[in-house]
Formats: sequence, structure tokens, C-alpha cells
Amino acid sequence: MKIAIIGTGIVGRTLASKLVELGHDVMMGTRNVADKLANKTPDAHGNPSLGEWIKTNNNVKLGSFSEAAAFGELVINATSGSNSVTALILAGSKNLAGKVLTDISNPLDFSNGMPPSLLPGLNNTNSLGEEIQKTFPDTLVVKTLNTMWCGLMINPNMIGNGDHINFISGNNEVAKNKVKKLLNQIGWHDENIIDLGDISGARATESMLPIWLKLMAVSKSGVFNFKIVR
Amino acid sequence: MKIAIIGTGIVGRTLASKLVELGHDVMMGTRNVADKLANKTPDAHGNPSLGEWIKTNNNVKLGSFSEAAAFGELVINATSGSNSVTALILAGSKNLAGKVLTDISNPLDFSNGMPPSLLPGLNNTNSLGEEIQKTFPDTLVVKTLNTMWCGLMINPNMIGNGDHINFISGNNEVAKNKVKKLLNQIGWHDENIIDLGDISGARATESMLPIWLKLMAVSKSGVFNFKIVR
Repeated sequence: MKIAIIGTGIVGRTLASKLVELGHDVMMGTRNVADKLANKTPDAHGNPSLGEWIKTNNNVKLGSFSEAAAFGELVINATSGSNSVTALILAGSKNLAGKVLTDISNPLDFSNGMPPSLLPGLNNTNSLGEEIQKTFPDTLVVKTLNTMWCGLMINPNMIGNGDHINFISGNNEVAKNKVKKLLNQIGWHDENIIDLGDISGARATESMLPIWLKLMAVSKSGVFNFKIVR
Repeated sequence: MKIAIIGTGIVGRTLASKLVELGHDVMMGTRNVADKLANKTPDAHGNPSLGEWIKTNNNVKLGSFSEAAAFGELVINATSGSNSVTALILAGSKNLAGKVLTDISNPLDFSNGMPPSLLPGLNNTNSLGEEIQKTFPDTLVVKTLNTMWCGLMINPNMIGNGDHINFISGNNEVAKNKVKKLLNQIGWHDENIIDLGDISGARATESMLPIWLKLMAVSKSGVFNFKIVR
């Protein structure tokens, strides 16, 4: 499948590598390809610049936001939450119309320091997933994978034999099934994918970020996930 | 131990029964004892009126908010979140000073229908637990037990051999240890009590209500809890 990943941060890169490994044709979209490739400085976390990363991942295509969105049969939003709507508008509503847009981002607000809170207007009675769906009514938004560290997104078997959960929500069943199949390919078993119903489920999963961040802070590791005991 | 429970709803009653069973001396506090006892009508969920309930639970004392707070060596806030600060002010800051106040409530806002959201001003960058601590600076507020159905609060072994989690947070270590001992008595093992640090942990656990409510809605049951897989 032709898959576009909007955003070239660590989350987008991690997913891109995995999807290519699975045999998909992947294009990552960024604001300005030439600027990104010219920059040789690692980021604040020590991750290599996009130019350095792409050298060892040269089976991943690179394009502008709109080139990537036009390319993808399925589009993944992996931008930081504060930039998501802007980036997707640049990707172009025409390029996104009728397509499944898998939103894996979180509306984190770093403007008041650490730990981040959720962005004003995108929490409690709204969510990033819902906001994207409202902004692109002709696109089939599916929220998933936003409640765990990106290493676990692509390798759930890393801990607990993969017996922990990923949520999914969205208004369109066909779109959700398409994303579930992709999740199965990545290693997520159906019994560990909890369908929360329509896109308002994004409100619930994005609200898990504060406990996720607190758990990461006290355990000094992001390598954990939630399981539901019944 | 003399324990006061502020609030006489199903959560307060469930805890009161358990704590009496464990040998504690329990007084529940309500706004107006005479009014509450005169009312014979079950509530909207079919729970008996307080007057009926107390007949079969006559080893639980009943008093006003302030009588209960004065009585308790340890005080538990089990009022609905929208009334908590008001109820605790009526309980009296002098009666609460120097005491451990265990806050198990959630700041749910039912004013826009179901499912509830979190109350404006008590979410994301604040929480009910923190608001109570700010309102009563001489009281040792400990947040716990607010992320599960009340039946599980007092009987964690009901599911998964008790292997699921309860969070605790608060600014004072001695107060948290006192509450942990009480949790141990109730059936919570130390390895399943995750200490999130200071009272800002309440922000994280109260933010779990949206996912809790969504999971309850899709599974048609509140008998579940979270576990952390590492």
C-alpha cells in the first residue's frame, strides 16, 4: 500500500521504517524538504537530522506535505499536536479527501514547560482527533497508537508478550477496519485493539497523556503500556 | 482508627461498610442529617435512601459534615466532585487541619449530559485534589482510589487476583504511608499501589476518567481496572 506519513520526527521515522520493512511504499511529508535535508544538526534528544537518517533509510521517499498526501492511499498524521492542523491544511484537503487519515498525535502543550499539559481548546470537551475530523469532513479520521512510546507502537511484543492494549476510534467502520488490518501487520492482535466507537474516543485516549507522562516520570522509562483487567 | 467519610452516596457507603468490617470506627458526614433520614425515596440508580441504608448498617455513625470531620482522625472525601470544596468548607478547615484527607472523588461535570466531562477549572492544568490542597493548606491531602468502580476499591481481588493498579499521590510522605497502610488492610498490595509523587498526580489520575467512562460504555460494565505492563 502507498502510505504517507505527515511529519518526520522520531515517531514518523519509527513508523516509516516498520512500514517499509512490511513491504509498503512510504513517503514522508515535511514542510520544506530542501531545508530539512540541508540541516545536519542532531535534535535536542540526539536523534540524527533528517538528512542523516534518510541516508540509512533510503527506501523511504521524502516529499512536501502535499506531495506526500497526494501520494498516500492511506495517510498517517505524525506531526506534533500543536502543528497538526496547520500541517494537514498544507497537505491539502483535496489530497486528503476520501482517504483514511490515521491520527497518532497528541495535543501536547509545552509552552508552560515540563511536563506538558494538553493544548487549550483541544482537551476535555474536544480533542485533536475530533478537530482534524471537523476540519476535514471528507476525510475518514481514525485515532490510534497515541497512548504509548513509539518503539512499542511498532513492536508490541517487546513487553508482556504483546498482551497490552491499543485503542482505536473513528466515525467510519470501513476506515477503522483498514487501520486494524495495518495494526495486525505491525503486530497488534485483534484482542488487544479496543474499539472505542466514534472519533470522540480520541478525547478519552488523548486524556491518557497526563497519566502516561507521570508514569514515565516516576519509572524513568517510556517502555510500558496499559492493560485492562476484567 | 476513627475515620470520617464526607458524603453519603454509593461510594461513601461502600467504603463505610468495608472500613467498619475491618474494625474501624466510622462516621459519615452529610449536609443535613435530619433531612437525609426523613427521605425514604431510593435514588435514580435504585440505591436505597440513606435512612433505609443506615438501618442495615447501624454500626456506621452519622453526623453533619463538621461533626464527622471533627470525629475523624483520618477523613475521606467521597462527595461528588462538583460539591467537594463546598462540602469540605462546611466540614471546617479547623476540623481538617493537621489531618490526612483522602480524596477519592472526581471533578465530573454532568451539566452537559452524558458522558460527563471534567469540570472547568479543575482539569488539565489543575485538579480537584490540588484544589482541595490549595483550599486547605494545613491538611495533608492524599489522592487515591479515584480510577475504578467503588466495588473494586474495597475488593481488588474481585478480578485478576487483584493484580491491577491503584495510584496514590500527595505532598506528604507520612500521610501517604498512612493511607497506604489503610489500602493494604482493604486488600491492595504494595506492588499494585503506584506512587505518582506530589498532589499534582491527581491531575493525571482524574484525567483517566474519560477513558474509564468510554471503556465502561463500550464494555457495558464498570468491573474492570488498569494494569501496567512493562
